[in-house]
Amino acid sequence: VCISKKPLPAKDRILEAAIELMKKTGLTGAGINQILALSRAPKGSLYYYFPGGKDQIIAEALALYSQRVATAFDQVLSREQTPAEKIRILFRFVADRFESGSCQQSCAAGAVTLDLDEAPALQKAAAMAFASWKETVARHLRQSRIANAEALAGVVLSTIEGAYVRGRAEASKQAFLEAGETLATLIQKKSRRSG
Amino acid sequence: VCISKKPLPAKDRILEAAIELMKKTGLTGAGINQILALSRAPKGSLYYYFPGGKDQIIAEALALYSQRVATAFDQVLSREQTPAEKIRILFRFVADRFESGSCQQSCAAGAVTLDLDEAPALQKAAAMAFASWKETVARHLRQSRIANAEALAGVVLSTIEGAYVRGRAEASKQAFLEAGETLATLIQKKSRRSG
Repeated sequence: VCISKKPLPAKDRILEAAIELMKKTGLTGAGINQILALSRAPKGSLYYYFPGGKDQIIAEALALYSQRVATAFDQVLSREQTPAEKIRILFRFVADRFESGSCQQSCAAGAVTLDLDEAPALQKAAAMAFASWKETVARHLRQSRIANAEALAGVVLSTIEGAYVRGRAEASKQAFLEAGETLATLIQKKSRRSG
Repeated sequence: VCISKKPLPAKDRILEAAIELMKKTGLTGAGINQILALSRAPKGSLYYYFPGGKDQIIAEALALYSQRVATAFDQVLSREQTPAEKIRILFRFVADRFESGSCQQSCAAGAVTLDLDEAPALQKAAAMAFASWKETVARHLRQSRIANAEALAGVVLSTIEGAYVRGRAEASKQAFLEAGETLATLIQKKSRRSG
């Protein structure tokens, strides 16, 4: 069955192009010309939808990406009940996404953090994305009544961001899988001991 | 007492400048012109010491940085005996280094991973740095007879790399401290239970 897929409107194509470019090389690779080339949007429509230019595109793209990742994390975490299983499935999910991008696409929010001098407003946007994802993980851990859910959620988030960094150098999703298994095992033992 | 400090020779100044620039913005910020400006080395000496240009400078700078970090990790980890205390002191050490760079300097090896398309040889250099640091941590954990030392060392390394990413957005060393305390607590409970 072949379902014809409508092309996205120019505004959405611009935001999707910005997200894709940020994942590859951060802010430096997401210039107006690269966004125009990848989105195939007319230059006129770019400035019509984003009168603030690159800064506005990047800010809106990061907000969209942040929301999308939070929703995906929430859905994945909802599939399991115990804290250990929740953490294991989350890392597997991110590992598979990373692999589907040929192990060469980072987290868009993480990737822009090297270029915050250029655009200080993005510092807040990236920090807000991290806070939102941490809270999503923490909420699930709290529901399963684990001690110290906030700090543990922070470790999970840092480990995911670091696995992107290692994964690109190692051209492998191994860092994600290793982290998921190891953290899940540590938490499991801890829970059993407390329980 | 005022001890006069000899200026470094040009070759060393070039490598130190390359490391400092990579920590700030990765490969894109470490161009020949920026390296010359920061090192105050004459252009002639740059091409005399590094006939391979930017690629050679970056490769040698990463090797130097990798060795230096491995040595520092080894020294810090040697100060404590138990796995939990080793992990706690390692994260505190990296947190303080991060803070002394105004929370705006990343790991040089981590920072270049966004730009590996440009210079594939660097992928291997970054991966070798990560492998060397992971092995340094793993050796200390094995000595204290913890189960699964390799995987745990991998998680420690990923979490450090991710804490740099979060730390720059959050302008804070909190992600490092949170990770050190949380991982140390998890390991401690696990060890006590096994012991």
